Amino acid sequence: MNEVIKEISSKHNHHIKLVKSLSNRKFREKESLFVLEGVRLIEEAVHAGVGIRFVLYCRKLSGSLRGSRLLNKFWELGVNTFLVEENLFSELSDTENPQGILAVAEVLQSNFSDFIINQESLFLLIDGVQDPGNLGTMIRTACAAGASGVVLTKGTVDLFNPKVIRASMGTIFQIPVIMREDNQTILDFFKSKGFRFLVADANGEKTYYHSEAKGPVVWVLGNEANGPGEFFLKEADEIVRIPISSKVESLNVAVATGILLFDYVRRRTVLVK
Amino acid sequence: MNEVIKEISSKHNHHIKLVKSLSNRKFREKESLFVLEGVRLIEEAVHAGVGIRFVLYCRKLSGSLRGSRLLNKFWELGVNTFLVEENLFSELSDTENPQGILAVAEVLQSNFSDFIINQESLFLLIDGVQDPGNLGTMIRTACAAGASGVVLTKGTVDLFNPKVIRASMGTIFQIPVIMREDNQTILDFFKSKGFRFLVADANGEKTYYHSEAKGPVVWVLGNEANGPGEFFLKEADEIVRIPISSKVESLNVAVATGILLFDYVRRRTVLVK
Repeated sequence: MNEVIKEISSKHNHHIKLVKSLSNRKFREKESLFVLEGVRLIEEAVHAGVGIRFVLYCRKLSGSLRGSRLLNKFWELGVNTFLVEENLFSELSDTENPQGILAVAEVLQSNFSDFIINQESLFLLIDGVQDPGNLGTMIRTACAAGASGVVLTKGTVDLFNPKVIRASMGTIFQIPVIMREDNQTILDFFKSKGFRFLVADANGEKTYYHSEAKGPVVWVLGNEANGPGEFFLKEADEIVRIPISSKVESLNVAVATGILLFDYVRRRTVLVK
Repeated sequence: MNEVIKEISSKHNHHIKLVKSLSNRKFREKESLFVLEGVRLIEEAVHAGVGIRFVLYCRKLSGSLRGSRLLNKFWELGVNTFLVEENLFSELSDTENPQGILAVAEVLQSNFSDFIINQESLFLLIDGVQDPGNLGTMIRTACAAGASGVVLTKGTVDLFNPKVIRASMGTIFQIPVIMREDNQTILDFFKSKGFRFLVADANGEKTYYHSEAKGPVVWVLGNEANGPGEFFLKEADEIVRIPISSKVESLNVAVATGILLFDYVRRRTVLVK
């Protein structure tokens, strides 16, 4: 154990190049790999059973007890870890103040069979949201509201974008998230299980707290500028709006998600009691 | 009108240096100036009566009809406008894809006398929020909920940070925002007018929808990691929590703001009807 660990300092190193390539969505999809950064997110991924291909770290990490422990755990588990020269590490990092550890992880593919379905099930369907911070915050919010899963339509920003993962605060490992299914398949799956579709739209016919709060439900929230797409608007059981002051054009889509899901859960809780 | 407009291309130009300095909070406070970027935000500021000291733009702006019209308006108003070489403009811009116009604006100082107060008044007090995106989204959310004003405690991120202004979607010009007052002054002002303080905290004694929904109210939301400070916790009339799944540590603070304010407004609306 006294051997000196060699530091990677070359941009041309295979692992460095791989991490850089993974900033590209197409490459992530081709390789079914993504990058996780920071002690806490990596801990949560490991805890959730996400496969870790290898770990890069820099000397800075040794300043954190929790970070050192995590590294130790990888040594015990036999995961490949590589020490990277500090400046080179900073180039790989997506944050301004890197903690000094990142992991290349295997994409977890959820599918419909991962969804736990009962009369109380609530799902969030995200239809075309573009901002990674919004998507991550929406998943975090759905998870907090007790949702059973999240579905992303094809036009939505990539789940494995580092900014999505960070904004989700690790909740992408706590809740099944389905993507890459087409709209008709999503609709057919939920309709066959007796779900109702509640779609949020600025032109909705009723106020959100007047929607029916019973049975299994899919809440649909759409793109930041344009709202939900035609497909789910047409298939909606109810289209609801959040009444807002005329001084403001719209709410942030993650804030709207919180208002709608928590009110729905509140009403169901109150009705059950 | 046929004279050729000279383009600023030097970093050492007085106006360029001023805009760069204004990225610093202390300098903004000293000069009582801040920077606004993008056609829409600048339009809204002008519409709200914000004083514009001068405008910088680059050739790219002429590609936008709305942008050209705005520039024309400044010419009519006699506001100084300066054409800046495109690369130099990009250096000043806070966005990845600049629209080609920014304005140096005069800080609007709201104070307590700007607050419209009645039995229905709702205010948002933001106690120590650090992320500019969160602060901007909270102001946007408060404005959407029909709040009469926003108060920032001294430890809160600066209102005139460009990221705050952008996330607020211009709502900082729609609603009075007070800052730089100390906690006791804020408390005394609202208490003297009969306001109740509702404080959101993860350890709150009751669920938010069980709080009393009557009379004028100040909602207090705190720092992302630590929640509200001791001062307002101690002075709270009610401390409420949002029940969340045990899978999640917390909600995003702007999402929490939306849930709390909209539920409060809903209850007051329903009770009045």
